[in-house]
Amino acid sequence: MSDAESPRRASILGLGLIGGSIAAALTDQGWLVSGDDVDPSRIERALADGLVASAGLDPRSEISFVAVPVQSVEAEVHRALRETVGWVTDVGSVKSSVTSRVSSPRYVGGHPMAGSELEGLDGADANLFAGAVWVLTPIASTDDAAFAAVAEVVNELGAEVVGLAPERHDELVAVVSHVPHLTAATLMRVAGVRAEEHAALLRLAAGGFRDMTRIASGHPAIWLDICDENRRAIEAGLDALIEGLSEMRDIVSSGRRVDLFERLNAARSARANLPSRAVRPSEIAEVRIPIPDRPGAAAEVFTLAADLGVNIASFEVVHNVEGDRGVAVVLVDSSTADTFRGGLLARGFRPAVQRLA
Amino acid sequence: MSDAESPRRASILGLGLIGGSIAAALTDQGWLVSGDDVDPSRIERALADGLVASAGLDPRSEISFVAVPVQSVEAEVHRALRETVGWVTDVGSVKSSVTSRVSSPRYVGGHPMAGSELEGLDGADANLFAGAVWVLTPIASTDDAAFAAVAEVVNELGAEVVGLAPERHDELVAVVSHVPHLTAATLMRVAGVRAEEHAALLRLAAGGFRDMTRIASGHPAIWLDICDENRRAIEAGLDALIEGLSEMRDIVSSGRRVDLFERLNAARSARANLPSRAVRPSEIAEVRIPIPDRPGAAAEVFTLAADLGVNIASFEVVHNVEGDRGVAVVLVDSSTADTFRGGLLARGFRPAVQRLA
Repeated sequence: MSDAESPRRASILGLGLIGGSIAAALTDQGWLVSGDDVDPSRIERALADGLVASAGLDPRSEISFVAVPVQSVEAEVHRALRETVGWVTDVGSVKSSVTSRVSSPRYVGGHPMAGSELEGLDGADANLFAGAVWVLTPIASTDDAAFAAVAEVVNELGAEVVGLAPERHDELVAVVSHVPHLTAATLMRVAGVRAEEHAALLRLAAGGFRDMTRIASGHPAIWLDICDENRRAIEAGLDALIEGLSEMRDIVSSGRRVDLFERLNAARSARANLPSRAVRPSEIAEVRIPIPDRPGAAAEVFTLAADLGVNIASFEVVHNVEGDRGVAVVLVDSSTADTFRGGLLARGFRPAVQRLA
Repeated sequence: MSDAESPRRASILGLGLIGGSIAAALTDQGWLVSGDDVDPSRIERALADGLVASAGLDPRSEISFVAVPVQSVEAEVHRALRETVGWVTDVGSVKSSVTSRVSSPRYVGGHPMAGSELEGLDGADANLFAGAVWVLTPIASTDDAAFAAVAEVVNELGAEVVGLAPERHDELVAVVSHVPHLTAATLMRVAGVRAEEHAALLRLAAGGFRDMTRIASGHPAIWLDICDENRRAIEAGLDALIEGLSEMRDIVSSGRRVDLFERLNAARSARANLPSRAVRPSEIAEVRIPIPDRPGAAAEVFTLAADLGVNIASFEVVHNVEGDRGVAVVLVDSSTADTFRGGLLARGFRPAVQRLA
């Protein structure tokens, strides 16, 4: 879609932390980026800082990123679909509601798992997504080419694409993000109430307590929308946590040391297994997958990889001269290539695996 | 107790992270430190690293620090009282059980609120306590001179002494340490169970989740004893947290945005008010308090300060030539001096406040 004469074009709707960072990264890579925001002063600042080259939506955008608060995402996605010709994605923290209301084949939902202590354009950083996981949530109506194109751009931003069904994404982020946030706030509140009786309490809060309540220091406004949009999954996650804490209370109360040890040890092992920020694997294999002529095939490759625990280090669709369907060229850790191949074969793909030196 | 010819002497029982760090700090300050441990290889290493000058207990120790696991504290405190002539303190995480079982006037319980990601002597660091809060838990039988002496040494280690009744200490650390630890483990466990179904889950865990579960990566063994010894306070803390989470669930479930905002905002404010590591106040006042001839008076000065939210930046007992009772010279933040004075007067002390330039 680009050549030396015409730079690639993108629009960013919403110039906060995430939108500003995407703008910065794309501009750094030579894209011609246009930016829009409800707050004109943000546009001015993004122009002044060189994050974007122009204001508003660029109708010729190859891709548009919608990076506005959760409850405005749907309207802005529709606007981008109306006013530009290219692919459209968003970066909202909840995915099933918006994907169920946007049926355009040019749209694919997304959610970068990256943030910053800083808020707004102050935190904008072209390297924010380096090594981060970026979820894309294709559905049946998503054009394969849309998914592939968005995945490629996300890859260029330095992130690793994980494909998940929207409902699955929402369940998982409830567990690793939304419920932990509400828990941090509740812990902080319990301590705050006790501190009113005992002035010394908060002075006893050492590093562990500070770590656990850090996320409670963020601005509360965005959480109102997140809790609205992801209500069911958050309820389920809170129920599981409350049940786990009640069991923990029983174990402590009845002095069941073996059970306590087992729980703490299981938690310790699970913590040790938390994947570090994505690193390029040392031994990689190239998996070439002809994309068959059926809707959602490229998306299926990604969601299958996520289900199998296979990390996709890089992804590209190349087009053969003889046909208009492409071949997905996927790089994965060499040790997971056979698992991936097996899963792909079972789903009717025809993968070819080559281990790279 | 010291002059140029005879260095001050201390014994450290238990050469782990905390014991090793105390040994390092005292040795750095010219003390002659003797160290003991059930594991001879730790003693050898502490000798080789120059943390201690000799092995075993030094009978002439001016002060002994017991830094062994919670359930061995009582026995080692009794041993130090038997085998040395000086003051004895400990660093265990739970205080009411041990203080109720040791009636010696030479003993005062303690708990430094400091730690490290490293374990054992690998983490030993003479600066571990700089700016940290170190709780001391005197009781009625504690000799005033014991409390004052231990408080002075703790001050020399760079820590800020907070005096609390043992039961109060245990309630407060349940809220800011023990319950958060069990919560981190439970969150990690809930996520770990879900991750067995959905391989992608843990890859979605970004910084917030990592912060919240970091303390779950510690060794579980010490927590069995802590949960045994502080059972009642941990039960109460878990009950308060479970109640708070259940309320949060109801708020999310019924879409009460105003209530949700209020809770998150209160948590945010409380988090912002967490005191930073103790810093010397910019404007200080000196409060001189003659220590009356009644047991526990020095300890009372400290516990009163903690109740009033007054931070004691430095503490020293000077002895007048005319009598054997001393004068406590206490430095506090100038803005809190009047509150402190009022409280002291109400308790029958005769404080003199002088603001220092």
